[in-house]
Amino acid sequence: MRNKQVIFRDFLAKGAFPKESDMEVTESTVDVTRAVAEGSKGVLVKNLYLSCDPYMRGGMRKLTDPAESYAASFQPGSPVTGFGVARVLESGHRKFEKGDLVWGLTGWEEYSLLPAPETCFKIEHTDVPLSYYTGLLGMPGLRAYAGFFELCSPKKGETVFISAASGAVGQLAGQFAKLFGCYVVGSAGSKEKVDLLKNKLGFDEAFNYKEESNLDAALKRYFPEGIDIYFENVGGKDYNLEQPKGVPNLIQISMKEVRMEGFSVLDYYHLYLKFLNMVLPQIKEGRIVYVEDTFKGLENGPAALVGLFSNCDVGKQVILVSRE
Amino acid sequence: MRNKQVIFRDFLAKGAFPKESDMEVTESTVDVTRAVAEGSKGVLVKNLYLSCDPYMRGGMRKLTDPAESYAASFQPGSPVTGFGVARVLESGHRKFEKGDLVWGLTGWEEYSLLPAPETCFKIEHTDVPLSYYTGLLGMPGLRAYAGFFELCSPKKGETVFISAASGAVGQLAGQFAKLFGCYVVGSAGSKEKVDLLKNKLGFDEAFNYKEESNLDAALKRYFPEGIDIYFENVGGKDYNLEQPKGVPNLIQISMKEVRMEGFSVLDYYHLYLKFLNMVLPQIKEGRIVYVEDTFKGLENGPAALVGLFSNCDVGKQVILVSRE
Repeated sequence: MRNKQVIFRDFLAKGAFPKESDMEVTESTVDVTRAVAEGSKGVLVKNLYLSCDPYMRGGMRKLTDPAESYAASFQPGSPVTGFGVARVLESGHRKFEKGDLVWGLTGWEEYSLLPAPETCFKIEHTDVPLSYYTGLLGMPGLRAYAGFFELCSPKKGETVFISAASGAVGQLAGQFAKLFGCYVVGSAGSKEKVDLLKNKLGFDEAFNYKEESNLDAALKRYFPEGIDIYFENVGGKDYNLEQPKGVPNLIQISMKEVRMEGFSVLDYYHLYLKFLNMVLPQIKEGRIVYVEDTFKGLENGPAALVGLFSNCDVGKQVILVSRE
Repeated sequence: MRNKQVIFRDFLAKGAFPKESDMEVTESTVDVTRAVAEGSKGVLVKNLYLSCDPYMRGGMRKLTDPAESYAASFQPGSPVTGFGVARVLESGHRKFEKGDLVWGLTGWEEYSLLPAPETCFKIEHTDVPLSYYTGLLGMPGLRAYAGFFELCSPKKGETVFISAASGAVGQLAGQFAKLFGCYVVGSAGSKEKVDLLKNKLGFDEAFNYKEESNLDAALKRYFPEGIDIYFENVGGKDYNLEQPKGVPNLIQISMKEVRMEGFSVLDYYHLYLKFLNMVLPQIKEGRIVYVEDTFKGLENGPAALVGLFSNCDVGKQVILVSRE
């Protein structure tokens, strides 16, 4: 059977901005009935939704030191890899059987052979949009949950600032903080996103950082008594710049007794079921909403991924490959 | 009675380097027998040892926002303030009586009237050098202890890097880490300091950062498998520069799941007795040593303080005002 694929062409030069032409949509073939070899513990899946996430920028860079990035490099000439929702067509793994829905790491193609599917989660709850398992109910959701509740040690009434607040993680971190009883302000890069934050996602305040000539003044305006928690979703301009801009006031870490902590969501997978039990009722009762920006068709994958780095995205970027 | 004082002249311009002429040694008078007014809870003390600490740079700067610095500003025209060891001459406070030895915040003068002495600790153990209560057994010691044991969450065998390693705090943090079973490397700014670290303070390795053209390479040489704990004692060049140099690779906080935390030793005063019980036997058994650089006479105070910021100091800078 034909297998449309989004192929990663070659590593980007240091400091280069990702372009659609760094990827290529081609076609290969797959024998869907005999893809899983005798004795293999792999599964063959049909990909339904694919996720665009900022960490994927790291996969486009040739690494000399594997410790340099948490994202394994993409393979030039092979499909882009990332999180997705898929249906099992054939299984050599006892945890999965034909027809199961799963989410986890997969390839940007119609059909993927996953040699080590045990890192995928089986999807048990299908009374919510399946695409949510790339975002709200997937890795970004768990990242927002673990980041806010496990790392930020929030207290009711604390003030919370969230950057990239309309993104896949930010919109959830903000809603979690609001439900917890915090005062929440978000920043984003367009009027449309700011409206979304204030009118749909329930943030107390939001502002367009591009319209603020003095960001310090903007933060003072919204936080006259300071910020207790800053949930950082941007990584500065570091993702794409060759010479990242330095942070000049790091001594404030000492002056203001700040704790700054980076984390990998992989260390919090054990909390996934706890997270799901908390968040599913909130979704059904309408107390948590989620904004997605869906790109229909695998051939629009490159545009969706590039859009993530050019501030065109609103909400979670998802690629719809197939509805079933 | 005459009271020699080191007067702070005026606030430094932003970015100015502290100079001896920013202070002036003058003489005032004090009535040592009637200094504590009827009904006052203050004490009059005779200062014996005064401490030079890096945080004092903050007191020389005019602050517009009191949250900007943990160091209260000095008062132009009044004595420099800082930690010291003193003997009580007269007391209006029930916690102290005449003859008591104390350590805590005092003035750079022969005699000080302390209006709120309850933040001072009474000195019970006098079988160690009294000057140690400005360093090893005072604020810097508690800072090294709380910083290493409470904040760094060390594990045996971890690799520890300490900057300004021969300083008041660094030399202790390094010795604590060695006694705990870590591999410890320190950096300092002269051959003399490096020798001290390796030969007297028991560091596994030490290097002169001024002789390394590539600091990354130096760190790779001493830590081929990476650094688990970095105990930062420098604050970059932020103390004295108008435009602090930015830290460009902050995204590694996220990539490498780093926790970076600033703290104030004031939040750890409740651990002081626990710290003292741990460290006193180690001193007596010679397992912890301490290097001091003593400036004799209050009139050498300005030189001692300025030396702290020009890398001339070796070990803890102490001013000997009077032996008893």
